[in-house]
Amino acid sequence: MSLLVVGSIAFDGIETPYGKRDRMLGGAASYFALAASQFTPVRVVGIVGDDFTAKDMAPLKHRNIDLAGVEHATGKTFYWAGRYNQNMNERTTLVTDLNVFANFHPTLPATYTDSPFIFLGNIDPTLQRSVLTQVKAKPKAVGLDTMNYWIERTPAELKETLKHTQILMINDDETRQLTGEHNLTRAAKMIFKMGPKTLVIKRGEHGALMVHDRFLFSVPAFPLETVNDPTGAGDSFAGGFMGYLASQKNVTEQSLRRAMVYGSVLGSFCVEKFGVERLTRLTRSEISARARLFSRLTAFQL
Amino acid sequence: MSLLVVGSIAFDGIETPYGKRDRMLGGAASYFALAASQFTPVRVVGIVGDDFTAKDMAPLKHRNIDLAGVEHATGKTFYWAGRYNQNMNERTTLVTDLNVFANFHPTLPATYTDSPFIFLGNIDPTLQRSVLTQVKAKPKAVGLDTMNYWIERTPAELKETLKHTQILMINDDETRQLTGEHNLTRAAKMIFKMGPKTLVIKRGEHGALMVHDRFLFSVPAFPLETVNDPTGAGDSFAGGFMGYLASQKNVTEQSLRRAMVYGSVLGSFCVEKFGVERLTRLTRSEISARARLFSRLTAFQL
Repeated sequence: MSLLVVGSIAFDGIETPYGKRDRMLGGAASYFALAASQFTPVRVVGIVGDDFTAKDMAPLKHRNIDLAGVEHATGKTFYWAGRYNQNMNERTTLVTDLNVFANFHPTLPATYTDSPFIFLGNIDPTLQRSVLTQVKAKPKAVGLDTMNYWIERTPAELKETLKHTQILMINDDETRQLTGEHNLTRAAKMIFKMGPKTLVIKRGEHGALMVHDRFLFSVPAFPLETVNDPTGAGDSFAGGFMGYLASQKNVTEQSLRRAMVYGSVLGSFCVEKFGVERLTRLTRSEISARARLFSRLTAFQL
Repeated sequence: MSLLVVGSIAFDGIETPYGKRDRMLGGAASYFALAASQFTPVRVVGIVGDDFTAKDMAPLKHRNIDLAGVEHATGKTFYWAGRYNQNMNERTTLVTDLNVFANFHPTLPATYTDSPFIFLGNIDPTLQRSVLTQVKAKPKAVGLDTMNYWIERTPAELKETLKHTQILMINDDETRQLTGEHNLTRAAKMIFKMGPKTLVIKRGEHGALMVHDRFLFSVPAFPLETVNDPTGAGDSFAGGFMGYLASQKNVTEQSLRRAMVYGSVLGSFCVEKFGVERLTRLTRSEISARARLFSRLTAFQL
C-alpha cells in the first residue's frame, strides 16, 4: 500500500575521515523514500529550489518514487553541510541554509489524499498536522519523527499532532525530553497516553528498541567493518521500517518486529557509502541476505 | 564443572538517587561468584581483612560457594565507596582503600588446581597469570576481565596473560584502547591474534556483543522499569556467562550464545536492588522466566 512521506529534500555537503562529497542529494525525505521504495510505492511531499534539476531528482525517479507532491519553488534548495570527527560519533554542522524550505507549506496533490500509510518527517508539528488534515480517509498508520527543537519550542502543537500518531520514532534523549522521565520504559507509558501506542527508540550504533503497549522488541545495529558516512542512517531506518509495514496486509506484532529488522537493515546499508550512494544501488536480494544475518546475529535457543 | 574466580572481595559504600548502603559485601569476585553459583560450583580466590566476619561471608556461604581460597589477612578489607548521579550513567568514586588487597598474591588451595573453568577478574595481569601457572590440568576455558589502568601501565604483562586466555570480556573503550582500532569488528580480529578467540564487549545499558572468530552474537540489556543500583552489573554478567558455560558439557556456538543471554539475565537482576541484595535472593525459576523474556524481546520470524 502507498506510503506518503513529508520532509526535507536537500543538497548535502559531507566530510568524514573517509572522504568528502559536495552538493549531493540529501534530506530526510530522500533517505526515507529511497529506503521505503524497496518495499512499497512511496509518495513524497517536499520542496526544492530552481537549482534542483532533473538530474538531481534522478535517483528518486529511478526507484519509481512518486514526486507529484514535490514543489519547485523560486530560489535555492535547502543546503546542509557537516563534518564528522575521526570516530564518527560526533559531527559539526558547517552550514544550514534553509532557503526555500523556510517557507515550506506541504500541499498534497489530489492523488495523495487516499494514502493509507503516512510518515511525518521532522518538521514543524503544525505542518505535520496540516498534512494529516489533507488526507481524506483515515490512515492505517501514521509515523512521526521530531527533535529537541520542536519539543522545546512548540510542545503544545507537537502534543496535538501526537494525538493523531500511532508510531513515534525518536531517540533516547528526545524520549526523555518529551516526557521528563529518564527511565525509557516508564517514559514510554507516558507517551502511550499522548496518542502513539508504539514507541521506536533509535539508538544509532546501539540499535533500536520498540516499546509497544503489549510487548517490547529490541534489535541491534549491525556490526559493520566499514562505515563511511553515518548521514541518513536514522531516516533510512524509518524508511525501511514504514516501507516494510506498508507492504504488509495488517499491522501486527510480527509485522512490527520485522519492520524493526528491515529498518535496521536499511540503516546498516546506508552508512556503508556516502550519502544516498548505497541506497541507490541496493537490491532486494541484498536486503534479504542481510535480514538473515540479523537473524544469525540475534538467534539463540534456550 | 567447577569454575574458579580470582578477584576482589570488598566492603562497598553505595549511594544512588534511590538509597544508600554502607559497608555491604562487594567486590568483583563476590558479584561474579553469586551469579555463577546459580549454574555451577564456584571456587573463589581472594583476600579479606580481619574485619571480615563470618556474617559478612554468609551470603557467599549460603550459595555453597567454595571459599577455601579466600585468605584472611591481618588488616582491613578492601573498601570502596561511590555515588551515582541522578540518571545513574555517571558515578563518582568517593573512597578506594585497597587495604589488604594491595598485597594480594593469589594462592590456590590444592583442591582448586584441577579447575576446568577459570575467570581472571580485573587485577594485575601478572597476578592473573600466576593463577594460571598454579592450575595443573589445561583448563577448558579461561575468561579474563581487565581495564584501562592495566592496558596503559602493564601492556606487555597483559598481552602475555592474553596468550593463555580464550574469552576476553571488556567494554567498547577498553577494546579500542587495547588495539588502537576504533571499529569493533576490526579490533576483534586484532584481539584474535593476541590469543582469545572470543571477545565479549560489555555495553551496560546497551547490552553486549560477542565477536567470535566464526560468528557474531548480540544481546540487548533488559529494559527495566526499576534500576536501583548499577554496581556489579558487569561482574554479574561475567558470572552468569562463565557459570552457565561451565555447567555445559562443551563450549559450542549454541552454549556461548546462551551464556550471553544468562549473563544478561544475571546483570539485569543485579541492578534491581542495592549491591548483592537481589543476587542473594534469586531463584533458578526467576532466571528461567527472565531468559524467556529475553527470547520474547529479541525474537522475530522473517
